Amino acid sequence: MNKNNPIGIFDSGLGGLTVVKAVHKILPSEDIIYLGDTARVPYGNKSRETVERYSLEISRFLVDKNVKMIIVACNSASSLGIDAVRREIKLPVLGVIGPGARTALKNTKNKNIGVIGTRATINSGAYQKALKDNGNNLNIYAVPTPLFVPLVEEGWSDSPITREVAEVYLKELKKNKIDTLILGCTHYPFIKKVISSVMGDDVILVDSADALAGEALQTLQKTDQLNNSGSKASIQYYTTDSPVIFKETGERLIDLDLSNTKQMIF
Amino acid sequence: MNKNNPIGIFDSGLGGLTVVKAVHKILPSEDIIYLGDTARVPYGNKSRETVERYSLEISRFLVDKNVKMIIVACNSASSLGIDAVRREIKLPVLGVIGPGARTALKNTKNKNIGVIGTRATINSGAYQKALKDNGNNLNIYAVPTPLFVPLVEEGWSDSPITREVAEVYLKELKKNKIDTLILGCTHYPFIKKVISSVMGDDVILVDSADALAGEALQTLQKTDQLNNSGSKASIQYYTTDSPVIFKETGERLIDLDLSNTKQMIF
Repeated sequence: MNKNNPIGIFDSGLGGLTVVKAVHKILPSEDIIYLGDTARVPYGNKSRETVERYSLEISRFLVDKNVKMIIVACNSASSLGIDAVRREIKLPVLGVIGPGARTALKNTKNKNIGVIGTRATINSGAYQKALKDNGNNLNIYAVPTPLFVPLVEEGWSDSPITREVAEVYLKELKKNKIDTLILGCTHYPFIKKVISSVMGDDVILVDSADALAGEALQTLQKTDQLNNSGSKASIQYYTTDSPVIFKETGERLIDLDLSNTKQMIF
Repeated sequence: MNKNNPIGIFDSGLGGLTVVKAVHKILPSEDIIYLGDTARVPYGNKSRETVERYSLEISRFLVDKNVKMIIVACNSASSLGIDAVRREIKLPVLGVIGPGARTALKNTKNKNIGVIGTRATINSGAYQKALKDNGNNLNIYAVPTPLFVPLVEEGWSDSPITREVAEVYLKELKKNKIDTLILGCTHYPFIKKVISSVMGDDVILVDSADALAGEALQTLQKTDQLNNSGSKASIQYYTTDSPVIFKETGERLIDLDLSNTKQMIF
């Protein structure tokens, strides 16, 4: 494997761009190939079988592009599709679940941890399992919050309606006095403010992007795959729907230059 | 063409089941093949090119199943994909736009008509064009209301939050004193009550399903393709994602027996 090969990152849509940003910040010399599966987005209400199929199709595409590592920057795909990818693809494959769970474990004091995500992510039990993997004695409260994604995409992040929805969804988590809340969907950091104001300032919100980027760095160091060419990294974006819509919607959410976006149809 | 061949109906997901019910009611001897593209749902925020591609794939599948007519029971596909289907498929192809527009024209008295739908449907201008086709002198107010679908799917049809969302979305339509409102998405009839209570009892809500079923009957009569075997019709359902999820979610929304559902992967 050539150290100068790119890192492959994929998501069902645009949320994974937060991971691109975090990885690029901590690993500024690493080339990145990102694919957002916007023609089939969202994954969060689809079956394991379908999410596995999509994750494999995209991973094979990234392997064809000679990536040296795959990052599954989508909680639903990390919950439902990553095992199938790891079985088939002989490269390091990182997902968002592990880093998010480990960060939460480091932060919690009262051992009451909350997790929010799509129905697919929560029902898969992936976070619940990752949190308990080392026999941790925890109380875990996992709640599906599927309306947060369409509310973010509608641009209603600051709307009082989003706050009301958050109050309904987060009620049980507040009652159970969690001190740490995993944002188990890459869209949720965009409404961090609302979630924090409902939960209270004392509750730590865990966004996997930074933790995941840190683990990507460690993995490349351990496997001696760090790009030390010193050259400026390039980021190539692919979308399965229209590159124009991808650029427009993506740049509204995050300050990345998405003009270099190509279409890939599966 | 054999008169006893089935009618093909498709939608991006489950909303088109309202059309299945309306068609089956008015044409109880006609066999139906329904496909809900739940693995790629929703279509309402995707590009024309992608919706065309999906509509063509599904239509070819229905033609392989020997359908004698295709009904596009999805507003986004009727807005963006139906022209491509009509160019390729040499069968009667009915969509929801025409019947909805004609029903609205019959009902309006003050010539102020509202249309709500997904962003794809509204931005396509399909309803606006259909309403003005015969030089009708109308005021048309078209508003995208994308959060209605996830709210219905979350089971929040009766929630006060859905009412608040409706008040935000429908404000302009109320101000412009429309007397007729086209429900330009097959999910919206499930929140008819909320929409009606926000708009007021005087505003007529147009749900295309019945009008579309009536036009299907007329088309079969005109082309001498009515099934007059007198035999009991069968309905075969296909879904592109899990048949179990299709049955569970579908039967929560509508009283149809969906146990006879097969998977079709494109």
